[in-house]
Amino acid sequence: MIVSMQKGATPEEIDAVVQRAHSLGMDVQLNWGTDKTVVAILGSNTGQLPTGTFAVLPGVEGTTRIMKPYKLSSRTFKPQDSTVSIAGVEVGGKRIVIMAGPCAVESKEQLMEAASIVKEAGASVLRGGAFKPRTSPFSFQGLKKAGLELLAEVRERFNMPIVTEVLSTLDVSQVAKYADALQIGARNMQNYALLSRAGKSKRPVLLKRGLSATVTEWLTAADYLLAENNDQVMLCERGIRTFEDSIRFSLDISSLPVIKRFSHLPVIVDPSHAAGHYAFVPAMAKAAIAAGADGLLIEVHPNPKEALVDGLQSLTPSDFTRLMQELKPLAEAVGRYI
Amino acid sequence: MIVSMQKGATPEEIDAVVQRAHSLGMDVQLNWGTDKTVVAILGSNTGQLPTGTFAVLPGVEGTTRIMKPYKLSSRTFKPQDSTVSIAGVEVGGKRIVIMAGPCAVESKEQLMEAASIVKEAGASVLRGGAFKPRTSPFSFQGLKKAGLELLAEVRERFNMPIVTEVLSTLDVSQVAKYADALQIGARNMQNYALLSRAGKSKRPVLLKRGLSATVTEWLTAADYLLAENNDQVMLCERGIRTFEDSIRFSLDISSLPVIKRFSHLPVIVDPSHAAGHYAFVPAMAKAAIAAGADGLLIEVHPNPKEALVDGLQSLTPSDFTRLMQELKPLAEAVGRYI
Amino acid sequence: MIVSMQKGATPEEIDAVVQRAHSLGMDVQLNWGTDKTVVAILGSNTGQLPTGTFAVLPGVEGTTRIMKPYKLSSRTFKPQDSTVSIAGVEVGGKRIVIMAGPCAVESKEQLMEAASIVKEAGASVLRGGAFKPRTSPFSFQGLKKAGLELLAEVRERFNMPIVTEVLSTLDVSQVAKYADALQIGARNMQNYALLSRAGKSKRPVLLKRGLSATVTEWLTAADYLLAENNDQVMLCERGIRTFEDSIRFSLDISSLPVIKRFSHLPVIVDPSHAAGHYAFVPAMAKAAIAAGADGLLIEVHPNPKEALVDGLQSLTPSDFTRLMQELKPLAEAVGRYI
Amino acid sequence: MIVSMQKGATPEEIDAVVQRAHSLGMDVQLNWGTDKTVVAILGSNTGQLPTGTFAVLPGVEGTTRIMKPYKLSSRTFKPQDSTVSIAGVEVGGKRIVIMAGPCAVESKEQLMEAASIVKEAGASVLRGGAFKPRTSPFSFQGLKKAGLELLAEVRERFNMPIVTEVLSTLDVSQVAKYADALQIGARNMQNYALLSRAGKSKRPVLLKRGLSATVTEWLTAADYLLAENNDQVMLCERGIRTFEDSIRFSLDISSLPVIKRFSHLPVIVDPSHAAGHYAFVPAMAKAAIAAGADGLLIEVHPNPKEALVDGLQSLTPSDFTRLMQELKPLAEAVGRYI
Repeated sequence: MIVSMQKGATPEEIDAVVQRAHSLGMDVQLNWGTDKTVVAILGSNTGQLPTGTFAVLPGVEGTTRIMKPYKLSSRTFKPQDSTVSIAGVEVGGKRIVIMAGPCAVESKEQLMEAASIVKEAGASVLRGGAFKPRTSPFSFQGLKKAGLELLAEVRERFNMPIVTEVLSTLDVSQVAKYADALQIGARNMQNYALLSRAGKSKRPVLLKRGLSATVTEWLTAADYLLAENNDQVMLCERGIRTFEDSIRFSLDISSLPVIKRFSHLPVIVDPSHAAGHYAFVPAMAKAAIAAGADGLLIEVHPNPKEALVDGLQSLTPSDFTRLMQELKPLAEAVGRYI
Repeated sequence: MIVSMQKGATPEEIDAVVQRAHSLGMDVQLNWGTDKTVVAILGSNTGQLPTGTFAVLPGVEGTTRIMKPYKLSSRTFKPQDSTVSIAGVEVGGKRIVIMAGPCAVESKEQLMEAASIVKEAGASVLRGGAFKPRTSPFSFQGLKKAGLELLAEVRERFNMPIVTEVLSTLDVSQVAKYADALQIGARNMQNYALLSRAGKSKRPVLLKRGLSATVTEWLTAADYLLAENNDQVMLCERGIRTFEDSIRFSLDISSLPVIKRFSHLPVIVDPSHAAGHYAFVPAMAKAAIAAGADGLLIEVHPNPKEALVDGLQSLTPSDFTRLMQELKPLAEAVGRYI
Repeated sequence: MIVSMQKGATPEEIDAVVQRAHSLGMDVQLNWGTDKTVVAILGSNTGQLPTGTFAVLPGVEGTTRIMKPYKLSSRTFKPQDSTVSIAGVEVGGKRIVIMAGPCAVESKEQLMEAASIVKEAGASVLRGGAFKPRTSPFSFQGLKKAGLELLAEVRERFNMPIVTEVLSTLDVSQVAKYADALQIGARNMQNYALLSRAGKSKRPVLLKRGLSATVTEWLTAADYLLAENNDQVMLCERGIRTFEDSIRFSLDISSLPVIKRFSHLPVIVDPSHAAGHYAFVPAMAKAAIAAGADGLLIEVHPNPKEALVDGLQSLTPSDFTRLMQELKPLAEAVGRYI
Repeated sequence: MIVSMQKGATPEEIDAVVQRAHSLGMDVQLNWGTDKTVVAILGSNTGQLPTGTFAVLPGVEGTTRIMKPYKLSSRTFKPQDSTVSIAGVEVGGKRIVIMAGPCAVESKEQLMEAASIVKEAGASVLRGGAFKPRTSPFSFQGLKKAGLELLAEVRERFNMPIVTEVLSTLDVSQVAKYADALQIGARNMQNYALLSRAGKSKRPVLLKRGLSATVTEWLTAADYLLAENNDQVMLCERGIRTFEDSIRFSLDISSLPVIKRFSHLPVIVDPSHAAGHYAFVPAMAKAAIAAGADGLLIEVHPNPKEALVDGLQSLTPSDFTRLMQELKPLAEAVGRYI
């Protein structure tokens, strides 16, 4: 960490910074610049030290991290790419994994039909929400336990692992009993109590990026999962909140090469939630594969017009089947396959 | 809700929109424009209807809400200003309520000293965190139950009600036993499971705005609390995430007149979390009062240099005492008092 | 345009809205909702009418556009895709056009070498800045006229058309004399005086998106060019300003399908300015092609370490050559070629 | 500037950084951390050095500025507050200067009436646009020269200095002939050609903040004006672009204390353009004064309903007169006067 002193900081003020560093077991080195003094704080855990520890001292103008605040999710900590296994389906390898299905589980018929379509088209994991986070308390909140049971039933029938969202610490053990992978939604990315519980469940976890979380904050949140000795963590980019109003969220495509540079974790892209509209999903799905995504999470509904939740962003069976055909040569063009 | 059809939409497509509206118990009126047809969906609950219900139909170009998606928190629903009582301290009346104290409860001595200082300077509610949400799992997470007990002890000693954060559904009943008001943090604004529990506790709830939540989403989240028949809800503006990097969050001062126009709920401002640095807290506190805030939530620490959490944004006792002196004439200049 | 009245608006207030619409030659249709009245303003030019025209009237709660504010750039105005010819190189057709070269023209040797490399690797247009917009007045501002002359000389030598930026109304005629296409930079997207002049030059114009311009504002700015009877307009996505700080600008990949849906203009992507760092350029270039870009604008420098401007985002000759090899199969995978 | 090397950077790579610094006349100091080496670049002009100068070298992980990139506008360069004189009206002193008038000059009658109203209510500078930047080329673009002549005429009649916007380098000398202060609009904040010309005019310049400019970029743009030996520079906060959609721009109230800390320049606030709606102007004007603004720029129209431009954000004469009465005690409460 770099602590830059104000112009005219006194020797006592500089010394207080040095003393604090020493009291925390860190070394320091002083840089006497023309206009101001800069104190370099040296040590292997400076990334986990809040910058305020020094910024609060008199005479300090500012502080800058040199080490990243995240640790377990960093490529420095683990240089090789990680892979995750969702009941035998490997994520992070040469194959790009397609996870598809309806936004919400609505009925046995709907889920069966969806599973049949997406499996036929080449998806290898089934998605579907049993617990739904809704912006309004007056909206449909999901089938809950009944939805989990339907997911489990359809898994057996189609031999496809399932990923589903868990919304509350109260539900982690129940969801983990049924699901092959737990999804933590964007609005819960920094719900640390939930992260700890999900990490402890030992299920693979797909951690969606918060609406306004930086990549650094996202990787730091992943540390909460990894800190529970759960190394089965996938990241999921699903769009960030910006000023642009022509789509629901702006897919941050550059987060992919950034994560690949700084982290070893696999990254999935959810073009459906970013777009908010089926018409924009295919272009965003293609961009994701070209930019290095390890998988896609796509909403497909047998009949989007009758969907109870987010039908607008769901692909029809025929649109999804066509998209899968278009994605295959793209995957090959980047040296992978679907 | 307004549904605008694409140029060249067929009569059958227009009719499908009309049929869907009727099936939901809504009336419609057709507007035959020069270039496109616009269908107005009429009814008293159109605000709670997802726009996708119509946007998903063939031939629809777009949809626009006329009614707001929030209901119970709206001024249309309740035209008169609401007031909240935190153990007898009224929020939303002529008096501007100052809630102050340390970011985290660290020890009995620290909390006692903080309470003594802020009470002496004119604060009427004591704040202090027993459960701390931290971006890194390696940071101090709060004293938890021991912290709640200290808060309760200090409340008795200084006769000041306390407000403290609740982080998890698992802790709601425990926190509600000790606290006079529950605080829901920014990162949990859309943690609906937590909102429902907190609403059910019947304690007054201070709902912080999410980092990237619009005012509309914030008021819709407040509906989750109000829907539990808990009318003791306060909003708390604490800065939003923008591109500006000279401070931690950009205090959205304009949210105050916007809320006062569209909602009946009282609004508190937290300049400490927005600023992230003590030097910017006073100007932001003053702006809040001038813009119509019903209260302030300010971090004060007996010795910020030694604070375990967020010392950089905490005011020293003397800075807080001076600020309180400066705020009093400002409150009077806007027809209120502290 | 939709004008929604406040609950309780008087008949006189509603009538004033109707009268204003009539005075502007528009028709109206009244929708009597349960809670509020909605006035639909009908006419073929409502998109160009400021919403404030009605919002300012007493009793009006809000206004919503149905028609887009842009006109000449819209697909409604011209349904077929437009193509642009840069001295014979067609943009917007089946071929994806690569425009590459140094950020700034520095010397004859540098420009010659850059042109030789990018042509050899498959680029068909040479880019290079003679006038440089710099955030600091103390930075290198470009070779200006001497730079234009070098560009013209290198064009003859390598038979590659050139695109270069024009910064000021004062320079339009001079730049237009040398360049095959004019580039309007992001910071000038709403410099309307410059847009008009550039439009009048009859040169093809590449209009970069403003740092915080919505797609709608960008297309409306393109109308300034098109309104000068200049139909040779290309858009260029180069990243938007968001809260994310791991790269310089967030490439808004979803702007591509959005523009393709609402406009007939070709779209180029500049991954170099978005990324700000060479390491992230390839992934973003690939994503652009997959998402439907009609071309790329890439910075290449013979020796980035010695570049006078933005060397960090420039590819080396070998990195560019490798990227071109990787882009070719991707272009084919989306049914195009380079 | 701090240059942090990648873990495992070679001695040759570190040496190349050192050599580059020496070649630029800078000193260096090496900090050998546990995990990586950090090179401190020392010298008085490191703030004006692009970070890419070092970031582009092999083995470099990142760079961080210690010195700000702006210089002439910084408080380090000039510790005392600056004042500006607009034809004798001092800005930056104890008096808070109110600049008011219509958005656009429309006619002699309109301007006379506006001037009469705002002068009577206590404003000391008249604002009014003769050249109007409009998002659509089909909108009213201002009276141009005729507007300037009207402004000059009204100045004589009411003895009020005038501030008006200049849009193009072509118009600077003409506008400077009539106006007492030049306004540079938000969309032109980084139109460097215009800044240089405006600086050279020797008129006081009011520099509005770009829609998505950081405070640092804004102060660096002010350097363009100051570098022309023009020390009569005022900043004007007018709201930034964020995701919030209930108002037009989010007034960045915290920019005020930030600027007061890092710069010596006076700051004006324009609540009208931020709000976009008259109902929100008063609260934002009050907040600005409480937070330390040196002046306000407010739109007032004799009859907003008939305004040609931005009537929605204009105050009526009676609303403005009432606001001025409310602002006076607020100014006194912060030790100033109007």
